[in-house]
Amino acid sequence: MFLDDLRAAVDASVIVTDPDVLAAHSRDEADLCESGQPLVLVRPKNTADVSMAVKVAAEHGVPVVPQGARTGLAGGANAVDGCMLLSTAAMNEIREIDPVNRLAVVQPGVVNAEISRAAAKHGLRYAPDPGSFESSTIGGNVATNAGGMCCVKYGVTDGYVLGLQVVLANGEVMRCGRRTAKGVAGYDLTRLFTGSEGTLGVITEITVRLTPIPRQALTLAAVFPSTTAAGRAVTAITAAGAQPSLLELIDQVHLKAIEDHRPMGLDTEAAAMLLAACDTGIESDLAEIERLCEESGATEVYRATDAAEAEALLAARRLAYPAMEKLGTIIVDDIAVPRDRLAEALDGVAAASRRNGVTIGVIAHAGDGNLHPNIVVDGQDPSSVVAGRTAFDEIMELALALGGTCSGEHGVGLLKRDWLAEEADAVNMRVHRAVKDALDPAGILNPGKVLRARREIV
Amino acid sequence: MFLDDLRAAVDASVIVTDPDVLAAHSRDEADLCESGQPLVLVRPKNTADVSMAVKVAAEHGVPVVPQGARTGLAGGANAVDGCMLLSTAAMNEIREIDPVNRLAVVQPGVVNAEISRAAAKHGLRYAPDPGSFESSTIGGNVATNAGGMCCVKYGVTDGYVLGLQVVLANGEVMRCGRRTAKGVAGYDLTRLFTGSEGTLGVITEITVRLTPIPRQALTLAAVFPSTTAAGRAVTAITAAGAQPSLLELIDQVHLKAIEDHRPMGLDTEAAAMLLAACDTGIESDLAEIERLCEESGATEVYRATDAAEAEALLAARRLAYPAMEKLGTIIVDDIAVPRDRLAEALDGVAAASRRNGVTIGVIAHAGDGNLHPNIVVDGQDPSSVVAGRTAFDEIMELALALGGTCSGEHGVGLLKRDWLAEEADAVNMRVHRAVKDALDPAGILNPGKVLRARREIV
Repeated sequence: MFLDDLRAAVDASVIVTDPDVLAAHSRDEADLCESGQPLVLVRPKNTADVSMAVKVAAEHGVPVVPQGARTGLAGGANAVDGCMLLSTAAMNEIREIDPVNRLAVVQPGVVNAEISRAAAKHGLRYAPDPGSFESSTIGGNVATNAGGMCCVKYGVTDGYVLGLQVVLANGEVMRCGRRTAKGVAGYDLTRLFTGSEGTLGVITEITVRLTPIPRQALTLAAVFPSTTAAGRAVTAITAAGAQPSLLELIDQVHLKAIEDHRPMGLDTEAAAMLLAACDTGIESDLAEIERLCEESGATEVYRATDAAEAEALLAARRLAYPAMEKLGTIIVDDIAVPRDRLAEALDGVAAASRRNGVTIGVIAHAGDGNLHPNIVVDGQDPSSVVAGRTAFDEIMELALALGGTCSGEHGVGLLKRDWLAEEADAVNMRVHRAVKDALDPAGILNPGKVLRARREIV
Repeated sequence: MFLDDLRAAVDASVIVTDPDVLAAHSRDEADLCESGQPLVLVRPKNTADVSMAVKVAAEHGVPVVPQGARTGLAGGANAVDGCMLLSTAAMNEIREIDPVNRLAVVQPGVVNAEISRAAAKHGLRYAPDPGSFESSTIGGNVATNAGGMCCVKYGVTDGYVLGLQVVLANGEVMRCGRRTAKGVAGYDLTRLFTGSEGTLGVITEITVRLTPIPRQALTLAAVFPSTTAAGRAVTAITAAGAQPSLLELIDQVHLKAIEDHRPMGLDTEAAAMLLAACDTGIESDLAEIERLCEESGATEVYRATDAAEAEALLAARRLAYPAMEKLGTIIVDDIAVPRDRLAEALDGVAAASRRNGVTIGVIAHAGDGNLHPNIVVDGQDPSSVVAGRTAFDEIMELALALGGTCSGEHGVGLLKRDWLAEEADAVNMRVHRAVKDALDPAGILNPGKVLRARREIV
């Protein structure tokens, strides 16, 4: 009945019920999050079909789970039983690049990096650069308010979303935001939908802010005998007022995994490596960071001599996930702590690793205090999984105890919804619920993500 | 009865019923917006009293109008009949400056510029700089999502609000946001309350992001024979990928008014003057802007030779409002248009001036496409007021026709609520209403601001 109505309402070629395809689309990259059995997958090519599909789902009370490239790391795109998966991956047109107003209008299925490539001929880029920037879609980036490496200087996705077209829970199409550089008329609905992980609406078009391509970055790698010393360097760099365009930490577990995955001469004896870059065009800015690394105990500081060397250093960082995946099933954590608690956070993660007998490697957008403790478990061994989950929870507790957050950039999804409820106060959670109920009274949009579904609470 | 309960609930010393004081607090600086008769003014010194006052008001169905320094320009702080004015001006403590995490925790009554002064010893500042930065309070800045001159490079208030404490419509106290550099857990309630003009809650504490004080800016003034040429220069500067830290336009009406108000040798024959600054520390960046001004037809470009000269040029810009106020009653407009429509917007404003026989001066945060057409009327002459209001509406229509917005930085308040409803689509306005109803079901918070009150609609 629902499927009949759906077929009557949208282009039949975008409706998929093949069980293999459904299974392949039933989850994102959060390995240990549960996923349900979808009823159907819809891959619309335009907003009208998204609107119609949601309208039909709403009429039948069928849950709607929006999806992009399913590169998410918190289970936000995972199927719930009986749902309609609504993939916007096929809506992948760059509609407009406007160099004078420095904006692009894109469909949600456009891959992040494609926007910068299209803007480059105008000397512009789309700044936020999640690790998945060559595979994740802008729709998912906006839905999760994705971060990345350049965010330490340039901020995360929400700083680059000017306007949205959104399909609401009843299928209505709304526009919010603007094409102007500034604008404060009305509530900031654009930011309300950004990061709402498909629980308030389905994003069908995005107007993003483009910014001038910065000057060529000068890049260094500094090697530290302890993670504490590396953490100290980060604090010193921040306290000195430096503004690196990148400040990443790679710990020994990751250095070894990367070197095993693709040998590139990394110092696998080092406790941690910091990567730092400055794109101010002023050489002394990087020299100051170099000095602060040395004063904080770096045993070696290596400056990239050209862009190719700098890119090679970043490539090592980008290999962190694929390299770690060779070690086992990874539970990806994503805490952020106040920058001056970084060293404590690193110590606490090491303690959680020892206590639970699981390997935990840490990579960090260190300049933002955003750590990814990556917990390695044997997915086939229940006791290993339990140990990993215990470590995960301990790290969450640690983050909150240090005044931090359960999600620096990956979002809440399924993985952290109970931790969100710990982090936010009770009044705040009631406001969350009031907003959700106001915009999705029947609770059909991505139910159980970010907030527990009503039926789970009762 | 209400007043009795109020006196029983909050510190009596913060309750004011003196008619003269009430009258003095009944409006902000939007001269021609209506204001009602307040019942009482409450000036709490702490969040507990704000909470209690709102709770008592809610019990009695008394409207609550939050106020800061009442420097607003859209009537957002104007009294409605029978309301409780709730001023947070006496909550003016800077609670904390944290230089490593680059944040400050402040009460809403702290004056904008005080934050930067307190942070300066750590090499930090609070970036957003509305024209009123020496008088407006941070609470009002956040409530209106205020802009300023540095926003062309550094963005507006919402980029600098990390977290809030808010008293909700029922008196409950909520915290949202964070102290970390990054964090995406849950809906972005911080941004939802930012710019909501007191219609969703009363802001009682703000955690703001501080940023390093930039390098000394290099500043120039360029004089143009036509506003069109000045607009062309702005487009050329933006299209070239330049990133000025300030790019302001002052038209002839303002140049003359400022020079009359305080003689400083401004070229009052010029059609427009552009002020531009670069704080990259790279001299060639300003030289490029100078070249682009000359190519666009500047008849003279003058570079400030030191910080004092640069400050003198900015001081001229900051005198624009006081200078204009000498000419009559000012209806302050605040449109933003896509940057490449700036010249058209300037032409359109000039046409509205001619058509209605009213003087309109324009100052603009030109680099953002944010224009302030300041309409001079004789407040005692009804026909002059009508002509001014007609010009105001024509300028609003012009802004929307050019793809712009009715408010670049001042907010909607009373002045532009019907224009917001023009600018946003019907679905968007229903979402606005749904959010308002969800958070303030009885409609007691700043009723009639941003959105018409329900009783006005029916």
